[in-house]
Amino acid sequence: METVFSYDRLFNFSYNIFRAMGCSDEHASLASKVLISADARGIDSHGVARLSGYVRLWEVQRINANPQIKIVYETPSTAVVDGDAGLGLVVAPYAMQVAIDKAMQCGTGWVSVKNSNHFGIAGYHAMMALQHDMIGMAMTNASALVAPTFSIERMLGTNPIAVVIPANEQPPFVADFATTTAANGKLEILQRKNADTPLGWVQDVDGNESTDANILKKAGALLPLGSDREHGSHKGYALGSIVDIFSAVLSGASYGPWAPPFPAYVPMPQNMPGDGLGHFFGAMRVDAFRPADEFKQHMDNWISRFRKAKPAPGHEKVLIPGDPEREMQELRIREGIPVVEAVLDDLQKLSQKFNIPL
Amino acid sequence: METVFSYDRLFNFSYNIFRAMGCSDEHASLASKVLISADARGIDSHGVARLSGYVRLWEVQRINANPQIKIVYETPSTAVVDGDAGLGLVVAPYAMQVAIDKAMQCGTGWVSVKNSNHFGIAGYHAMMALQHDMIGMAMTNASALVAPTFSIERMLGTNPIAVVIPANEQPPFVADFATTTAANGKLEILQRKNADTPLGWVQDVDGNESTDANILKKAGALLPLGSDREHGSHKGYALGSIVDIFSAVLSGASYGPWAPPFPAYVPMPQNMPGDGLGHFFGAMRVDAFRPADEFKQHMDNWISRFRKAKPAPGHEKVLIPGDPEREMQELRIREGIPVVEAVLDDLQKLSQKFNIPL
Repeated sequence: METVFSYDRLFNFSYNIFRAMGCSDEHASLASKVLISADARGIDSHGVARLSGYVRLWEVQRINANPQIKIVYETPSTAVVDGDAGLGLVVAPYAMQVAIDKAMQCGTGWVSVKNSNHFGIAGYHAMMALQHDMIGMAMTNASALVAPTFSIERMLGTNPIAVVIPANEQPPFVADFATTTAANGKLEILQRKNADTPLGWVQDVDGNESTDANILKKAGALLPLGSDREHGSHKGYALGSIVDIFSAVLSGASYGPWAPPFPAYVPMPQNMPGDGLGHFFGAMRVDAFRPADEFKQHMDNWISRFRKAKPAPGHEKVLIPGDPEREMQELRIREGIPVVEAVLDDLQKLSQKFNIPL
Repeated sequence: METVFSYDRLFNFSYNIFRAMGCSDEHASLASKVLISADARGIDSHGVARLSGYVRLWEVQRINANPQIKIVYETPSTAVVDGDAGLGLVVAPYAMQVAIDKAMQCGTGWVSVKNSNHFGIAGYHAMMALQHDMIGMAMTNASALVAPTFSIERMLGTNPIAVVIPANEQPPFVADFATTTAANGKLEILQRKNADTPLGWVQDVDGNESTDANILKKAGALLPLGSDREHGSHKGYALGSIVDIFSAVLSGASYGPWAPPFPAYVPMPQNMPGDGLGHFFGAMRVDAFRPADEFKQHMDNWISRFRKAKPAPGHEKVLIPGDPEREMQELRIREGIPVVEAVLDDLQKLSQKFNIPL
C-alpha cells in the first residue's frame, strides 16, 4: 500500500513541521528542500520517513531549532564549523557553502563540522558545488551499527561518502554511497517485505553469517563494504574509519562507538569525546587544475566512453554513478512520490500532534 | 624456493640498475627507496619484482631517465605537475612535496599529476605527510584491468587509494588499498602456487563467475570492491572512477581504458586523450582544523578504542589499517626480505644485462 504525494505537498508539510518546531522560515525551507530531495531521488530512507525522528530529537532537546552556526577555526583553505546542535539539514549546507567560498579564494576548501545532527543525503550537499564548476565532496559519521573486520562490536556508522564531478553536455557524475555493503535503508525495505538479506550484508551478535533483516535489533551488525576479509571488508572498514576521522576527529565531534545515536530513545553514549555528530565537506574548483571547459569536455568524453563499455550478458548498459537517482528524480517530480503505509501513519501522527494538515 | 636478501642489498642493486638507466644519483636513490619500501612492507608485487618492468619501459622509451619534472599550473592550494615521462617513483615524491608545501602555506595542498608512470606503493607517498603532522593522501590510475558493474570490458585500473593519518603515541593510521576486491598482486601469488581465487575476485571474458587466477591472460577482468551489484560493486566502481578522474582528468593524463599499460610489450592505446599515467596527492595540516596535539591525542584514543573492539570468535584482535605492513617492515628490516625464484631469475637477468652484481 502506497499513497502518492506531489513533491510540493511533502515539501510544504515538512516545512510546516519544521516551522512548528520553531525553525526560522529560511531554515525550515532549506531543511525541507534537503529532506525531500532524498524522496525525489529515490533514497526513501533519508527523506520524509525521517521527519518524525528529527521531531523526537528536538523533543528530547538534542536538536536546537535556532542554532547559531558559526566558523570556530580557519585557514585560507580550511574551516571548522560548530553546528550548535542544529539540524544537520541546515548545518551541512552552511558548511558546504564555506567550503565553496574557500575554494573561490584559493582553489579548494575543506570544512569539518562538529556539534551537528543527521544531515539527510550526502549527495545534496556535495552537489552544491556543481553550479560553481567545482568538484564537491560530503561525508558524515553516524550511529555505530557496523562491526570492523574481525570484530563483533558496533564501532562505526554507515558513514557515507559523496563525490560529485561536473561535466559539460553529460549530466554530472554523482557518487553517493554508504561505506557498508548495504545501507541501513536497504534493510528497512526488506523488513517491510518480511524478506531476508543476501549473505554478506549483516552478521549476528556472535559474528556468524546471517540473512535476518531484523538483526540490528538483536545486537547484530552491518558489514563494511567487501563483506568479509577475503572480499576486502578491511577496505570498507578503512573507508568508514576515514569518514569518521575526517568528520569527527578533525572537527571535535564525537566519533566511533561514541557517535550520538539517531533514535531519540537510545541513551547517549557515556564519556563522549566530542560534541554531537561530525561531517566533512570539500570543494575543488576544476579550473584550479586546468581550464574548466577543457576539464568538462574530457568529463563528457569519460562519461560517454564508460556508457558505451560493453555490457555483460543480461544487462542493457553500463551506468554512470548518479544515473539511477537522476532518472528517479525526473519521474517523481513528474508523477509524484509514493509513500509507504508505515511512513504515512507516521506523518499522520505528526499532522495530529502539530495540527498541521497533511 | 625463496632467497633472503637484506634491505641494503636490494636497495643497492636497484640503485645501480637505475644509475645504469641514466638516472641521477638523487633520482636513483629516491626511486630505490620507494621501490624497496614495498618489499619491506610486504607488498611484494610492487617492489623489486617490478624492476625489470621499469627497465623494459625505459628500453622502449616510455620512461625518461632524466625528466624535467615541473609545476605547470597552480593556485594557492592546488597544482598540476608534469612528470615529463619520468619514473613515477620520483615524480610522485616531487608532487607530494608540492602538496605538503601548499599545505604549509594555506592549510591544505592538492596536486594532480600527468605524464607519469607507475609510482610504486601509494602509501609511501602519502606517508611523507606524517613528519609534518599532516594527513596525507595518494592515488593513481593504472592499466585497465577492471570491468565496471554490469560490464565485461576492462575500463579501469586497480586504482589504489592511500590515506595516512598521524597519531601521538600510537603508530599512524595507514590505509593503502586497491579499489578492487583483490589487487592484481594477489592473483600473481595464486598463479605461482597454481591455486584458484575465491569467487568474487574476477570474471571471465563473458562476465561469468570465475576462480581462474590466470583469467586476466584470457581477457577476463578484475572486479570492483564489492564483487557484484548485490554486494556493492557499484561502490567499488565509483571509487575506482573517482581515482581515475582525480588522477587523470584533472591533470590531463590519459584515463579509463586509455591509461598506458605497464607491460612494455602491450601496444599503447589509440587516440589517447592525455599524457601518460596520472596521480593525485593531498596534504592537510591537522592544525588547520584544531591544535595538532589535541588531534593526535584523539587519534590515540580512536586507535586504542578500535584495537579493543570485541574480537569475533577465532580472531585474536581487531587491526588498525597499517598494522600488518608495519609489523612486516620491522620483521624484514631485521631478518631480510625473501625473494621468490621467478623474481630472482628476473634480477639475475638484469644483473647480466647491465653487468651489475646482485
